[in-house]
Amino acid sequence: MTMEKTLWQQVQLVRQKSPLVHNITNYVVMNNTANALLAAGASPIMAHAHSEIKEMVNIAHSLVINIGTLDEYWAESMFIAAETANTIHKPWVLDPVGAGATSFRDQILHQLLQFHPTVIRGNASEIIALSKTNKTITKGVDSTAESNDAVDAAQMLVNQYNTIVCISGETDIILSKNQSFHIRNGHPLMTKVTGLGCSASALTGAFIGTIEDKVSGTAAAMSLLGIAGELAVRESKGPGSLQVNLIDKLYNITEEEFTSHLKIERS
Amino acid sequence: MTMEKTLWQQVQLVRQKSPLVHNITNYVVMNNTANALLAAGASPIMAHAHSEIKEMVNIAHSLVINIGTLDEYWAESMFIAAETANTIHKPWVLDPVGAGATSFRDQILHQLLQFHPTVIRGNASEIIALSKTNKTITKGVDSTAESNDAVDAAQMLVNQYNTIVCISGETDIILSKNQSFHIRNGHPLMTKVTGLGCSASALTGAFIGTIEDKVSGTAAAMSLLGIAGELAVRESKGPGSLQVNLIDKLYNITEEEFTSHLKIERS
Amino acid sequence: MTMEKTLWQQVQLVRQKSPLVHNITNYVVMNNTANALLAAGASPIMAHAHSEIKEMVNIAHSLVINIGTLDEYWAESMFIAAETANTIHKPWVLDPVGAGATSFRDQILHQLLQFHPTVIRGNASEIIALSKTNKTITKGVDSTAESNDAVDAAQMLVNQYNTIVCISGETDIILSKNQSFHIRNGHPLMTKVTGLGCSASALTGAFIGTIEDKVSGTAAAMSLLGIAGELAVRESKGPGSLQVNLIDKLYNITEEEFTSHLKIERS
Repeated sequence: MTMEKTLWQQVQLVRQKSPLVHNITNYVVMNNTANALLAAGASPIMAHAHSEIKEMVNIAHSLVINIGTLDEYWAESMFIAAETANTIHKPWVLDPVGAGATSFRDQILHQLLQFHPTVIRGNASEIIALSKTNKTITKGVDSTAESNDAVDAAQMLVNQYNTIVCISGETDIILSKNQSFHIRNGHPLMTKVTGLGCSASALTGAFIGTIEDKVSGTAAAMSLLGIAGELAVRESKGPGSLQVNLIDKLYNITEEEFTSHLKIERS
Repeated sequence: MTMEKTLWQQVQLVRQKSPLVHNITNYVVMNNTANALLAAGASPIMAHAHSEIKEMVNIAHSLVINIGTLDEYWAESMFIAAETANTIHKPWVLDPVGAGATSFRDQILHQLLQFHPTVIRGNASEIIALSKTNKTITKGVDSTAESNDAVDAAQMLVNQYNTIVCISGETDIILSKNQSFHIRNGHPLMTKVTGLGCSASALTGAFIGTIEDKVSGTAAAMSLLGIAGELAVRESKGPGSLQVNLIDKLYNITEEEFTSHLKIERS
Repeated sequence: MTMEKTLWQQVQLVRQKSPLVHNITNYVVMNNTANALLAAGASPIMAHAHSEIKEMVNIAHSLVINIGTLDEYWAESMFIAAETANTIHKPWVLDPVGAGATSFRDQILHQLLQFHPTVIRGNASEIIALSKTNKTITKGVDSTAESNDAVDAAQMLVNQYNTIVCISGETDIILSKNQSFHIRNGHPLMTKVTGLGCSASALTGAFIGTIEDKVSGTAAAMSLLGIAGELAVRESKGPGSLQVNLIDKLYNITEEEFTSHLKIERS
């Protein structure tokens, strides 16, 4: 089977299985994240209360932790959830939003790494910051580094934490112990919509909660978002309508659209 | 006067009175909820600080409590608000999001029921879970049960807590001590937009804060959302544009659109 | 240079400099606020953890504090941020959402005023409430007073706290010690979209984080939002599509559109 077919089958499998994805994410993107997951066929739940975290991780198929608007209470929620997921072998995604921006974020991220995220997805600046104990200058939550610059940092994270790392950017680079992917889908206008990186992480959560091969599942999630974004841009007048059209396209993308636009290389 | 006319007059009354609706709701839907209330002519306020809850309930015309992303602090906010509303006879709506998913949610809901919500609005799974002390399997926050299965559970809640229960689904069923409504408006695509159930609860809050007859007010709110959703689907390419078009339609729906599409039965 | 040219150059300067704007704002509007800032060329960050506030204020170009959904923890975040901004001379905007609605809000606002906001932006009711120790009746977060009624209140705030005050409404009035502006852009439908006042405050933050002349920067921000809103209304069927089209227009507004629609008077 071609890679196009394999990845498209995974897109369809997520629709059929409708995995329950538990999100501990930031306030800015909760609505979009839930809508992106619903549009892709998954079932989102947002929950962060210490009193219910363990039960939620238990009933969910996967967990997504995004530190975008963390505070001390939410950091503890994230620790409980990540530890639970690690213990009971639920796949989970770490989105290190704003890594390097403050020492608080770096401390929390350092602790979360000890619970072995299945996948880490961030932009190049965040991945570089995550791999360092010394402080990196990050400008807000947007990337100022190129994906390629972050490859060494990502490789270190892969080796040290036995994880998959996805560096998202103009080219998305997915690295793991055994295989890697380069995906050249997406469009620059997507960086003008808040939280599409967060949607990428959430979709990755849906795919690794459904697909056995986590590296391939991550590639399918990133491809889906990139292609849907690319196609949605064509119908959009700016970032406002792109946010709306992207959700529509995640919902109604066809096999022909997916396979004919996919730009992926495996190595 | 026909029921169509009566309910349409209630829609217009909400626009004229512009009730102040105090929402203690979840992070995912706050923006949509505020926009749905504004579009229907109401005046939304979101407030949860223990230090101001009582004053807010006092100045508001109604209260909506939605436990979607609750934690221990917010649970206390909900108790203070519900107790105040019950004491000073402000109408209030309970939306038991994810009832049955965790024991924490069930405990909080059990306590909230003691403050006699004027209306409870949930999907079939949630209403069933709410009526039980023993645990029900809920899959996330979407309904896996049919509205009819929940009728017995709803009837029990009506009798025990002297409340109105609205089971939303393909058919919305509204039950009370004296009368019941079946509403067959809406469209399946609405389940792919996050938080339209929450919008239903918020609109119900606006209507019971305005209309004397709370059962009829609940029916008007559910009809308005169902019809607006149905009409909005016709102009939408997917769930992204549906979310937008639904707000537009709540704002500009005409008497002719409302009365000609209404599918309601009273018994 | 004409005022049209001056203000347009400021719009372009924000795009070039892409200031990092630190927002401590309310849950309802976080997504829109981030998208409005991105569309105007700024770089938004939302952060409220006590453990990282000082570092964030340090790396940001400006700070926006909006009390819409405050609680005791967030109030402390706001104090730390405002004190830091005042100490290190970072420009900051105060948005007193719901001033006068509860005594808690009024207490918090009273304390925040001691840290000398560079700009205060609110509707007429909020500005009047802010200028009083005794309680004003505010109906929710919408304005029931006219901008002109609030001029005396604003003038008092200008003198007492050495600040700039922007009263937004049908006419936006910007007052400072040395100069004032009246802006007659915008459209009534904008009041039916939640949080456009909050977007105005956030854009003001972007402009005063970029432009030396803070009064003129405030006028440019308010003009940009007003004109973009006016133009977006023409393509909108209601408040749902207006929210989307406004973001698009903030992103793709042209010099000709800006300068030909600007209705501003300086005195």
